[in-house]
Amino acid sequence: MWHIREKTEITGSLNPKHKNSADNAPEHTKKQETNTMKYAAVLGYGTVGSGVVKVINTNNEIISKNAGGGLRVKHVLDLRTFPGDPVEEILTDDFNTILNDPEVDIVVETMGGLHPAYEFTKAALEAGKSACTSNKELVAEYGLELLQTAKEHGVNYLFEASCGGGIPIIRALMNSLTGDEILEITGILNGTTNYIMTQMTENGTGFDEALKDAQAKGFAELHPEADIEGYDPCRKISILSEIAYGKAVDYNDLHCEGITKIQTEDIRYAAELGSAIKLLASSVKKENGCEMMVSPYIVSQDSPLYAVKGVFNAVFVKGNMLGDAMFYGSGAGSLPTASAVVGDVVDLARNSGRNIMKIWEKEKLPLVPFEEIENSFFVRVGTENLEEAKKVFGCEKVIEGVIEGEAAVLTGVMKEGAFAAGLEKVPVRSFIRVKK
Amino acid sequence: MWHIREKTEITGSLNPKHKNSADNAPEHTKKQETNTMKYAAVLGYGTVGSGVVKVINTNNEIISKNAGGGLRVKHVLDLRTFPGDPVEEILTDDFNTILNDPEVDIVVETMGGLHPAYEFTKAALEAGKSACTSNKELVAEYGLELLQTAKEHGVNYLFEASCGGGIPIIRALMNSLTGDEILEITGILNGTTNYIMTQMTENGTGFDEALKDAQAKGFAELHPEADIEGYDPCRKISILSEIAYGKAVDYNDLHCEGITKIQTEDIRYAAELGSAIKLLASSVKKENGCEMMVSPYIVSQDSPLYAVKGVFNAVFVKGNMLGDAMFYGSGAGSLPTASAVVGDVVDLARNSGRNIMKIWEKEKLPLVPFEEIENSFFVRVGTENLEEAKKVFGCEKVIEGVIEGEAAVLTGVMKEGAFAAGLEKVPVRSFIRVKK
Repeated sequence: MWHIREKTEITGSLNPKHKNSADNAPEHTKKQETNTMKYAAVLGYGTVGSGVVKVINTNNEIISKNAGGGLRVKHVLDLRTFPGDPVEEILTDDFNTILNDPEVDIVVETMGGLHPAYEFTKAALEAGKSACTSNKELVAEYGLELLQTAKEHGVNYLFEASCGGGIPIIRALMNSLTGDEILEITGILNGTTNYIMTQMTENGTGFDEALKDAQAKGFAELHPEADIEGYDPCRKISILSEIAYGKAVDYNDLHCEGITKIQTEDIRYAAELGSAIKLLASSVKKENGCEMMVSPYIVSQDSPLYAVKGVFNAVFVKGNMLGDAMFYGSGAGSLPTASAVVGDVVDLARNSGRNIMKIWEKEKLPLVPFEEIENSFFVRVGTENLEEAKKVFGCEKVIEGVIEGEAAVLTGVMKEGAFAAGLEKVPVRSFIRVKK
Repeated sequence: MWHIREKTEITGSLNPKHKNSADNAPEHTKKQETNTMKYAAVLGYGTVGSGVVKVINTNNEIISKNAGGGLRVKHVLDLRTFPGDPVEEILTDDFNTILNDPEVDIVVETMGGLHPAYEFTKAALEAGKSACTSNKELVAEYGLELLQTAKEHGVNYLFEASCGGGIPIIRALMNSLTGDEILEITGILNGTTNYIMTQMTENGTGFDEALKDAQAKGFAELHPEADIEGYDPCRKISILSEIAYGKAVDYNDLHCEGITKIQTEDIRYAAELGSAIKLLASSVKKENGCEMMVSPYIVSQDSPLYAVKGVFNAVFVKGNMLGDAMFYGSGAGSLPTASAVVGDVVDLARNSGRNIMKIWEKEKLPLVPFEEIENSFFVRVGTENLEEAKKVFGCEKVIEGVIEGEAAVLTGVMKEGAFAAGLEKVPVRSFIRVKK
């Protein structure tokens, strides 16, 4: 059972209240004390934070080996209490306990939200502690600043879990695909919406019902806007693009459409085309800049993204030498996300005192203006408007007979501006972009 | 157009014959000389080696940035001449030119085969040069020894391109999935056989014809045994398991079956089951050891491996915390493989003087004996033997009506030894393992 994101809200006192020493740590974390023992503190004992503690305790032998010495969680920061939980003994509600503990090398921020996550991370880095996070809001907003702070203080700031949950896509872009010019990143980067789309596709469920089902199963939040309106994948594709293209991206500059307008009729047409509708966050390098947006797309069976179902995420990457590659895995959830966080903790432990981050430039990545972005479109119209639609949008294919009284048109590649102008002329029942 | 592997055969003189200085390097590689300039030498100008030179020249700006300074190919070793090719000016047929050049930091071995690739790599590492390779034969046979040699001499030995072509699976296992206990690795690790299986599935082609087609297209070699008999994926899964499980694997210890016995009738049944037949190399951790083998499997549509077609490769990984993940990309070919090699070159340049390799233990990974490995089976029999087959093999499902006069049985999970004993009792037309 997983949750799409932790909801831990910590305001965190900055006044020292009680001291929390290594001596009162749980017995099971006291093994393997060596000269190279590293101590971590976890900020926020929510879905991801508790997962991090569980991963480090469960796999401690493997992790210590990979980290080149023992690794132990010494403090957990949370305003709540957890009676009976082994973490109780190392729990603190005072961030200064962590900040002022010289033994703590690594701060793991799994609080979510911008504040006080930003202040705590910044203070930790300035105190010479490395940090890692699963917090995409924070990285999208303050990532570059925190990377620079880390560099200035000779420590590292890593955020593998901020994009694609357990999928190690950030390290792949930073450390593996370093011989390539990245030409495209297209991802299914949000588990909630992919779960909803999968339900709509496989069970013919309507959007509202599928959302309620996702909420009932804990896959969607009570206030699901960040997911269903596409804000979450918008932040993630911005972060991935900053890494891949080396320049800053403000996610507010991106056109961002969610899945709320998808109708069951659209799903039926997609199936008729041997395709499925997916919420894609994409970033494509063109001569005049980067085409970036978040939007539902019709994805054909030929694409490796087609088969990505339920709460899984996937990131498709095209390199000018590598060609097509795809990374697939659990996009969210306590343990998969914690697995990625702990991968960062191990990397931080291994690279203590050594800068291993790839920092992008402050200069903004040139973006193709939305109106100039090129896409193909699937357009549904009443039969009475079919001829006009064909004339206005151009037409590569007409699909008839799926729903009585209407037809759909597949357009050729056209600019968003031209398509929007067409929408003024022809009344359409729905439209969806088509992945090239 | 790609080739499944380079066929460059170099015996390489060990006597110095001519000196090749930086001064006669092509003009276009002379840019960006800085204090941090790194020089690489490429051994073997075959399919992969020529790709490496092309990647480094084409993406020089990006690569230099990622490497933290300029990167340049200073020598290329080959016994052949390449009149008119820019590489001509930096070509040498004498390995000592490279070995004795103190400016060369990185040796890129893309010769293939065991000898003299082994001797050259060993000599380079002993001379304090880091090395990387795309040569799975060499890594499977001498990987551990070369890693140790590198460590003793304070340099690195990397081999990302030896498994899965351009897919960055080795670095993911070494540096990303470090918080997990790896429970399973299952890969489509050979492009040639996946191409043949795809042709057989999509066009109903027989094995012999599909093989000829693959040879005509340059996807299979004239002597294709290493691919079609499964020896190549057998080496690769051994290497991946050594990294994931931390102990040595002798690929000769694995049960290894190729695709030569697959019949078009088997493909028809697989389609009837909504499945496809894939050559899988798998390594599954069990309580009593690791179940490792290479064999064709029936893979259902629910598996992310199902959609991996043509010359693409994919590696499925299950971690005890991460859950399911998959890495997908071009499994072979000059540029995708070269992209992975150059990723290693960049890593070597970044980490000069610093050991970044994960070395496994010399002790052998405990393997479950073949007879004890558990699998489910698809078994085709003449209708006259159906009842006997159901009795002997057990039966979860019978498939009738696909081919006249015969039927197929899907068995439950059983041990290989018990299945083999059953084969002595019932005449079967074919059998294929079924991926759980």
